Amino acid sequence: MKRRAFVSSAGLGGVAAGAGVVASGFPRPAIAQERIEMNIVSTWPRDFPGLGTGAQRLARNIADLSEGRIQVQYFAAGERVGAFDAFDEVASGNAQAYHGADYYWKGKHPAFSYFTTVPMGLTYTEAASWLHFMGGQELWDELAGEFGLKNLSAGNSGVQMGGWFNKEMESPDDFKGLKMRIPGLGGDVISKLGGSPVSLPGGQIYENLVSGALDATEWVGPWNDYFLKFYEAAKYYYWPGMHEPGSILSFGMNKAFWDGLSANDQMLIRACCSIENDFGMAEFNANNGVYLDKLINEHGVALREFNDDIYEAFAAAAEEVFEETRQHGDLTNRVHESFLAARKGVGGWMKLADVGYSVKRNRGLGL
Amino acid sequence: MKRRAFVSSAGLGGVAAGAGVVASGFPRPAIAQERIEMNIVSTWPRDFPGLGTGAQRLARNIADLSEGRIQVQYFAAGERVGAFDAFDEVASGNAQAYHGADYYWKGKHPAFSYFTTVPMGLTYTEAASWLHFMGGQELWDELAGEFGLKNLSAGNSGVQMGGWFNKEMESPDDFKGLKMRIPGLGGDVISKLGGSPVSLPGGQIYENLVSGALDATEWVGPWNDYFLKFYEAAKYYYWPGMHEPGSILSFGMNKAFWDGLSANDQMLIRACCSIENDFGMAEFNANNGVYLDKLINEHGVALREFNDDIYEAFAAAAEEVFEETRQHGDLTNRVHESFLAARKGVGGWMKLADVGYSVKRNRGLGL
Repeated sequence: MKRRAFVSSAGLGGVAAGAGVVASGFPRPAIAQERIEMNIVSTWPRDFPGLGTGAQRLARNIADLSEGRIQVQYFAAGERVGAFDAFDEVASGNAQAYHGADYYWKGKHPAFSYFTTVPMGLTYTEAASWLHFMGGQELWDELAGEFGLKNLSAGNSGVQMGGWFNKEMESPDDFKGLKMRIPGLGGDVISKLGGSPVSLPGGQIYENLVSGALDATEWVGPWNDYFLKFYEAAKYYYWPGMHEPGSILSFGMNKAFWDGLSANDQMLIRACCSIENDFGMAEFNANNGVYLDKLINEHGVALREFNDDIYEAFAAAAEEVFEETRQHGDLTNRVHESFLAARKGVGGWMKLADVGYSVKRNRGLGL
Repeated sequence: MKRRAFVSSAGLGGVAAGAGVVASGFPRPAIAQERIEMNIVSTWPRDFPGLGTGAQRLARNIADLSEGRIQVQYFAAGERVGAFDAFDEVASGNAQAYHGADYYWKGKHPAFSYFTTVPMGLTYTEAASWLHFMGGQELWDELAGEFGLKNLSAGNSGVQMGGWFNKEMESPDDFKGLKMRIPGLGGDVISKLGGSPVSLPGGQIYENLVSGALDATEWVGPWNDYFLKFYEAAKYYYWPGMHEPGSILSFGMNKAFWDGLSANDQMLIRACCSIENDFGMAEFNANNGVYLDKLINEHGVALREFNDDIYEAFAAAAEEVFEETRQHGDLTNRVHESFLAARKGVGGWMKLADVGYSVKRNRGLGL
């Protein structure tokens, strides 16, 4: 309130010095300079590579780009609420925003999975086209709006590795009875193949892999996996993962808060989210290359490729999982149809473009 | 100057109303509110899909996000200077910025090619990692700095199609004597295969293809190619292009102008460039999917894939072109080495990740 008083007196003071400037060049100075409190909760541990550091960069950028006018306080998982309480904290208006992955909220609504990633789903570039130009954002708005949220994509962790296995996987039958840490719809796919998917937080995976309570685990990719030392407990590192081919990271805001922002502040936040889509994805890919090399050359990790039989079994199982998921209701079904159209449309283009080109370039150069 | 006077008097007026707020919450108000003129020239025709519209969006976003404080005037190619005069216009300080493709300036310095795209070069995602996290931007700064420029990536047109041909291309020998519109280093590769590369502006290609003066042409991709109706004159549409696998679009600013901006205004411009990297790339991919479908289903275009023999010949010829290019001097050589490290490092990761995954997903699903 003090600030408004100050701005008003400044405006009046300006009449003498340059009133014409105020009228022509500075629309809505009182609104533009109003301070806004923005508490951001997160589903990531503080400083967690890529995910935590990206969310922290987003928070800092919003504060910096607004020159401190948007007063951002960032709380990593557990610093204000637990990771999985971030949704309720923001939907209720206790906090203004969260950074996380919306598939954590599939218990609230199964359609949320599509706005992170689904098995046999979209890569980063495909997901960006879907969200920004093929109707994805509008469906996300509809879904999030049902819970009082407005969500934007803000980073992506890219294609995940298939995981760490203590034996070679040579056919779909090798998944029978396999105890594997793999949450979400990806876990449901493993279950269709006869495996036993387990959900475990990152900090508990290593000990269970060492003890033999787990036969296999996925986590993220070389950059993140390196630090958890799974290579000490499971020899074979499989690519490519089918379960998370391009996890959209979500900046979920309280919708009443979002609706109350000026068009300029909305744009400022959109711009900071685009920085994450641009830089965050680039950071994951750059570091995954570096750490893949370390894993192979410094730790003797045996890289293995899932064969076509296994991938066909993944594809068939994923179709079964989707058929169950879309039964939930009209909105989930419409999201699924929109997702399918994007996978076929932009996916069909990428097949000839980035994918087709890279395959031929790499073969031609022996890369 | 009037503006500064206004702000000063406002600051003084504020002492009574809320001086403490000024000190804590609003650093440098005089600088932050100073008006800045920014004339942007462009290498693209007005409203040209993706390239022109993206540059126009960037200009509008800078104006909007600064609430008009950065007073942007945008000039499409020919509206102020010709497309290829944009570099000199900005380097000289006549204009503050251009949007274009830096390979147009390879006559100024051959290393500029790498900061758009080179044959057998980086895809969009690889280039983003190279620029943002693998030393690419630092080298670009060094190169552009030699000419008084500061350049940032602002959009990408993705992998280009291989081009339109009036016969099927079955071996590298089929390029012998081929008159093909293909500029730049890509043209040099075609020349190594015995073809005759030609540079022609977009508006002159169709008539030359119809008359038979050209046997083949590349342009951009399905979205842009559709409107030039090449399908009326050349039957076979080949993928994937080796010559432009991810053209980085450049926002080149006069360096003295850039250095004179506040940290906040620099960040604002960086953010608007990230919007282009995020949305611009997504727009190209989304539309290329749609128009590829139209070309095939509405115009009976025959899609063809370059075979491995041809791609191996492209790869060998590109190596020869690079060997000549890097002879130019120390900076070009260092840029080339950095590019090679990125192609191997992040390219090696993408091979397992987005590329490896997409190939297996598409095969598994029959896409």
